[in-house]
Amino acid sequence: MSLIKKPVTGMKDIMPDEMAVRDYVISKITETYQSFGFTRMETPCVEHIENLCSKQGGDNEKLIFKILKRGEKLKIAEAKEENDLIDGGLRYDLTVPLARYYACHANELPSPFKALQMGNVWRADRPQRGRYRQFMQCDIDILGEPGIVAEIDLILATSTLLGKLGFRGFTIRINDRRMLKAMAAYAGFAEDSYDEVFIILDKMDKIGLAGVKEELLGKEYDPGAVDRFLSLFAGADNADGEGVPSVSLPEMAEKLSGVLDGSCPDGLAQIMQCVEEGKKAEFSVVFDPTLVRGMSYYTGTIFEIDMDGFGASVGGGGRYDEMIGKFTGQAAPACGFSIGFERIILLLMEQGFTVPSEKARTAFLLDKKLSGGRMSEAMKEAMELRAAGGEVLVTTMKKNKKFQKEQLAENGYTDFREFYES
Amino acid sequence: MSLIKKPVTGMKDIMPDEMAVRDYVISKITETYQSFGFTRMETPCVEHIENLCSKQGGDNEKLIFKILKRGEKLKIAEAKEENDLIDGGLRYDLTVPLARYYACHANELPSPFKALQMGNVWRADRPQRGRYRQFMQCDIDILGEPGIVAEIDLILATSTLLGKLGFRGFTIRINDRRMLKAMAAYAGFAEDSYDEVFIILDKMDKIGLAGVKEELLGKEYDPGAVDRFLSLFAGADNADGEGVPSVSLPEMAEKLSGVLDGSCPDGLAQIMQCVEEGKKAEFSVVFDPTLVRGMSYYTGTIFEIDMDGFGASVGGGGRYDEMIGKFTGQAAPACGFSIGFERIILLLMEQGFTVPSEKARTAFLLDKKLSGGRMSEAMKEAMELRAAGGEVLVTTMKKNKKFQKEQLAENGYTDFREFYES
Repeated sequence: MSLIKKPVTGMKDIMPDEMAVRDYVISKITETYQSFGFTRMETPCVEHIENLCSKQGGDNEKLIFKILKRGEKLKIAEAKEENDLIDGGLRYDLTVPLARYYACHANELPSPFKALQMGNVWRADRPQRGRYRQFMQCDIDILGEPGIVAEIDLILATSTLLGKLGFRGFTIRINDRRMLKAMAAYAGFAEDSYDEVFIILDKMDKIGLAGVKEELLGKEYDPGAVDRFLSLFAGADNADGEGVPSVSLPEMAEKLSGVLDGSCPDGLAQIMQCVEEGKKAEFSVVFDPTLVRGMSYYTGTIFEIDMDGFGASVGGGGRYDEMIGKFTGQAAPACGFSIGFERIILLLMEQGFTVPSEKARTAFLLDKKLSGGRMSEAMKEAMELRAAGGEVLVTTMKKNKKFQKEQLAENGYTDFREFYES
Repeated sequence: MSLIKKPVTGMKDIMPDEMAVRDYVISKITETYQSFGFTRMETPCVEHIENLCSKQGGDNEKLIFKILKRGEKLKIAEAKEENDLIDGGLRYDLTVPLARYYACHANELPSPFKALQMGNVWRADRPQRGRYRQFMQCDIDILGEPGIVAEIDLILATSTLLGKLGFRGFTIRINDRRMLKAMAAYAGFAEDSYDEVFIILDKMDKIGLAGVKEELLGKEYDPGAVDRFLSLFAGADNADGEGVPSVSLPEMAEKLSGVLDGSCPDGLAQIMQCVEEGKKAEFSVVFDPTLVRGMSYYTGTIFEIDMDGFGASVGGGGRYDEMIGKFTGQAAPACGFSIGFERIILLLMEQGFTVPSEKARTAFLLDKKLSGGRMSEAMKEAMELRAAGGEVLVTTMKKNKKFQKEQLAENGYTDFREFYES
């Protein structure tokens, strides 16, 4: 009987070094988010397949790990399609299970409910460097709070956390789905083409204004509409080159005043002001009219974290006031922020981060020939040191004591005690 | 599109109250076991089906949640049996994945390797009260340590943890597989019947000596062998009534001196002495010659925790020196202790346990008509309080302010601040 030694395709074993960093980050997450009044909760890793395939998960629904039916012997011969064989699937995010949880337990939960979830999710993505099929997500969500208090809270909490983890000078970009819709309406695009237009606009940071124009024309949109759309960025810094043209919120609000209700830019401005004045970490919050966010369930404010030296975003979120209602029949305003837990760990590991530890680490090396009485003395001493807050490893002394001590030193043991019989 | 609101069959949502207790217990586990030199590590929740079905898992192998193959469209019509359709399964314990992990990474790990694992496992058991299909396990294992230092360490660490969680007066029962084998050899049972004899002996606490005798005779074992077997308990307290006859370790060692190598009782005695003298919690460690433990992989010492008022054991473990070698081709001594995490949580919840919190909790209630400037002031104040170590919830003031405060008070908010425009 021999064993397959490697983990299953695309999933990874976590080694002690990384585990220490993960535990440290988890403790900072818990401590920080709890100081903002968020409460920990958990759902099962397995979710109803009907809930997972409810069209809220976008492309992730194609990546579900499905679980075979249990119970009576499987009738494979009679099965016509996959769904005749399966019973549930591993969750691909924490948002769909949260909506189910809230629908099931709203009566027992405070209002607003501020949820903190940390848990694994699974996606059968093509494995690639740094991207795994099992990974940890960390979400905070505020359910039942319609006001911008929610957005401010989420951004201040997340930025405080990143600050505590030692990150400096990151940027939180912010936009609003209603702003995007007003931009498309101003240009004169048909409503059913908005999603496609937004997906192209989202590429601005990679292909620039000229690239966006080219792609829109390539999709045969009315050239007049394309011109009006891009005129929203006219006169902005960087409007001719690569990257994102920097249109300020008041400028954009002014241009869209005919098609946009004033509450949207006012809310955005207020969020930015409160974050700017309240923040305890070094970062900037900037308006970015080209920020789109992939998931179609967002209804209002959206935000994303950019960090220097990291291509992809390290977190994002927004308001999704309609999702809970669609799922449960009872509407509830909702707003959430998810940090890229695995990316943060990767960044910290690459920076050679080590967990600060104040504890003294002592190793007791016990000679092999120790009698019961002497061993008992050693154990008693170890217990006293531990009770006083120390970390003590008790182990059998090896033949090559010098090498053994070197190895222990690598694992943080700085103090050694040797026990012999006499 | 409506949602199935309940969690999948046999799995449960964890509510904030229970989650707080779980997080507290997890922090105590981490703190205590780290003070004994254990290191956190993790394996993926999904494991190779070949590894899960390696006959080390006993009956659990019948309870695996299997995962459908991914990739090209499933060829259901061509599949002859389940295994043609599946790719892996959810782990049913943490021991099989640990063996794989050790086999894969031994070169990168310290020796001995003291592993602390906390993680969910899944078993498709018939759902029943208090028993779920997803549950948390918490194991400590020492790999590469052949001496009784390992057993003493595991028992002292686990009992220290239970003491810190407020448990008093529990019992750790201890025995040795070699002792059991010597008992069966002394009686004259055939070696291939040992496992069945042990399973019957294991029922002593429920059916007493007379019941064990009756069951053995019912299985048509030689009456002479049955009598010799039970004579090992002759003269012990309680030998005629229900419950476990209390034979002391020296008595039993004396009776078995012809068939048992002295190192076994000596080791057991030494473990008991060191635990007794080193312990920092109130509990007793007792020799129990009827303790068997279900899994067949144990090779030496075995132990189990009994707690008053709880029928089943709340933890157990033992030495399994051959498993790693069978799995990997390279032998490594191994010894582990698993605590019944879910049972401990259940006990604490039933006792009305609440997590000790030193933090002041303040709720800021913001009038709906607050201007941006005033809201910013409130947010700044909240951030100052948090930076000073407080917990501050900022929320919109509701029409029924009195009720809102009562609800917040139920969630531990004792201090309220109201913010109006003027």
